[in-house]
Amino acid sequence: MHLNSIRVDGERLWRSLMDLAQIGATPKGGVCRLALSDLDGEARRRFLRWCEAAGCAVAVDAIGNIFARRPGRRAELAPVLAGSHLDSQPTGGKFDGAYGVMAALEVLRTLNDHRIETEAPVEIVAWTNEEGSRFQPVMMGSGVYVGAHDLASTLAQRDQDGVTVGEALARIGFAGDARLFGQPAGAYFEAHIEQGPVLEDADVVIGVVTGALGLRWFDVIASGQDAHAGTTPLARRRDAMLAAAQVIVELDRIAREHPPSGRATVGAMTVAPNSRNVIAGQVSFTVDLRHSDEAALAAIEEAFRRACAAIGAARGVSFTIKQVSAYPVTQFDPGAIAAVRVGAAALGISHMDIVSGAGHDAVNMAGHAPTAMIFVPCAGGISHNEREAAEPDHLEAGCNVLLQAVLAKAGVR
Amino acid sequence: MHLNSIRVDGERLWRSLMDLAQIGATPKGGVCRLALSDLDGEARRRFLRWCEAAGCAVAVDAIGNIFARRPGRRAELAPVLAGSHLDSQPTGGKFDGAYGVMAALEVLRTLNDHRIETEAPVEIVAWTNEEGSRFQPVMMGSGVYVGAHDLASTLAQRDQDGVTVGEALARIGFAGDARLFGQPAGAYFEAHIEQGPVLEDADVVIGVVTGALGLRWFDVIASGQDAHAGTTPLARRRDAMLAAAQVIVELDRIAREHPPSGRATVGAMTVAPNSRNVIAGQVSFTVDLRHSDEAALAAIEEAFRRACAAIGAARGVSFTIKQVSAYPVTQFDPGAIAAVRVGAAALGISHMDIVSGAGHDAVNMAGHAPTAMIFVPCAGGISHNEREAAEPDHLEAGCNVLLQAVLAKAGVR
Repeated sequence: MHLNSIRVDGERLWRSLMDLAQIGATPKGGVCRLALSDLDGEARRRFLRWCEAAGCAVAVDAIGNIFARRPGRRAELAPVLAGSHLDSQPTGGKFDGAYGVMAALEVLRTLNDHRIETEAPVEIVAWTNEEGSRFQPVMMGSGVYVGAHDLASTLAQRDQDGVTVGEALARIGFAGDARLFGQPAGAYFEAHIEQGPVLEDADVVIGVVTGALGLRWFDVIASGQDAHAGTTPLARRRDAMLAAAQVIVELDRIAREHPPSGRATVGAMTVAPNSRNVIAGQVSFTVDLRHSDEAALAAIEEAFRRACAAIGAARGVSFTIKQVSAYPVTQFDPGAIAAVRVGAAALGISHMDIVSGAGHDAVNMAGHAPTAMIFVPCAGGISHNEREAAEPDHLEAGCNVLLQAVLAKAGVR
Repeated sequence: MHLNSIRVDGERLWRSLMDLAQIGATPKGGVCRLALSDLDGEARRRFLRWCEAAGCAVAVDAIGNIFARRPGRRAELAPVLAGSHLDSQPTGGKFDGAYGVMAALEVLRTLNDHRIETEAPVEIVAWTNEEGSRFQPVMMGSGVYVGAHDLASTLAQRDQDGVTVGEALARIGFAGDARLFGQPAGAYFEAHIEQGPVLEDADVVIGVVTGALGLRWFDVIASGQDAHAGTTPLARRRDAMLAAAQVIVELDRIAREHPPSGRATVGAMTVAPNSRNVIAGQVSFTVDLRHSDEAALAAIEEAFRRACAAIGAARGVSFTIKQVSAYPVTQFDPGAIAAVRVGAAALGISHMDIVSGAGHDAVNMAGHAPTAMIFVPCAGGISHNEREAAEPDHLEAGCNVLLQAVLAKAGVR
């Protein structure tokens, strides 16, 4: 049998996705399944039953990551991992995360159907708390797994009600001890909806993800002087709102000077005193800078800081800039990327290289194992939204590419 | 006796201001005396006692405006009015409003001291609810007096707790019936702190106020599409925050094209979903446009609307613009202005013409009687703030100019 002729069962994949989406289903057709909630526990148990039915041995680690192993011919080889996460945003969709886990499950089911014995073991992984909506930090489970976060302090993180990660894990029965962190992996593949509009615009089914944008987050405070909007001549103003607006316009210009992946976003703003006829004395806003090249990202940050200094000086407004988070540019593994690209080509599925604009567990795994991702289109590029949608055919195609990539890395004698 | 040689008692004026400021005094040295609150009632009663001690006949009208009359030689002449308001902002200062009423009281006390009989009666007026902090609209008492607002509907206005103006007036005992609205006045003078930095910057003591800026208020909603800050390329964005920021920068440019009185302010903004890594789908903000010339104000509004249309089209963002309030440009009466200017010149006090950037009861009165205002500096131009401050010498000088203007208009045989 030629391995390229094997296909996953697209209908079974779709049914699993729809079954899973019932757990935490929202009236608007989305999913609310916050990390380590009772609903997350229910989804995990359903996933475990499916894994056990597929003959997998299941292990849960101390941060709640789930590993479901299908043995290979050579038990001494590091397993090839495929997966994503089961938790969702508060108003999330059916596919973000869930697709990567269900696609990995479908790959194992297909291997079973065809009685294929791989050389290396193949494991499905469901990482704990990728979204970071309830507990910080985001991408928690994969971060602990690769040693980016300390286990003890992560277990002590609290949600808004004061519940710790450790308490929440114990409550839903997923405080495991079955596995050491940082165990080697032969490769890691994550299938995911793109969450952006690029594939849909290009009418391409598969995004061969070559890496992820670097990211720098800042909290900025513009401090001027609140004053009466009627009695204060323009020349005498220290208008924090006007200065902030100039910075926002300038940030867009700076990002456009670094195409194609340069991005700058001001998504949140708070104004004080926020009164119609009072010049704003203080404006706080967030800045999100991204680029696929570390030097370009640094140049964008430098230009942003220069803009604040120049605009502040001209407007009598002082800017304080605090970096609150940063992820370096991620380059995925050339061999893992090639396995995805070759798989798509062998199946005759349209594909293009793409860089992930968002963070994923694969970003954590990239420093730990040969890693790549497979993107499929989502309608209108909309995600983190109950309206999130994807075509069954595209999900099936992405799963077939995942199967090919897993087979290439796990090996079949 | 030459009338120009008469002087008010600056120390008595200051003591009255400081006495009054104890009612609603805040720990930070300001005043919180919301319109028709119990504290406003207490201030009104203290003011009434002072007026009665000065020999005045007191009347209260149905919207709570207080008139304290010192008879003239000819009772058939329309009285000359001087005053302002006793209510304050929630975190207001000691001088905004209070100065105009206490200065008028000091003028009457001085006339008594010198046993001067004017031809026309002279009246102190304390208008109800100039600030509009508790009840809308602002400048309520003078507005009802001149017929700009209907009495019945104004009495039915409610504060945030559902209390009506009528109920609040009755509660503090100032629901009067002693006077018809719109009674003729020979002139109206209002002394006030500038609430801006112009006089202080110019090192001038008296602002001869020739009018007030016209004002147009708008609520603007910029509607784009919220989307992931990482996965959405710049070219695909419909970023409501960026479009709003461009409009704010453009508004400043437009206002600067109409010097010296052109002003544009965006003081309040609300962002949705207001999340660090989500491009803002909707941004609501206020626009405050002012100018001393009606045609220039119209040109500013037109340029503002054109900017929204052009920026919106370029950014894929739609703007809805709703006018929520407007006051036309006010020109004060040349004769009343001259009385102020001549008074300052006769006393040898530095003075300059100035246009009020803020609304005052005098703006309502300008259509009803020959009206002018007298400004004195306030520290740093700061007002509507507990730090509001003014120099006793400046307050005394402004009161002496008010005395001269009142004498000029009331006449002394």
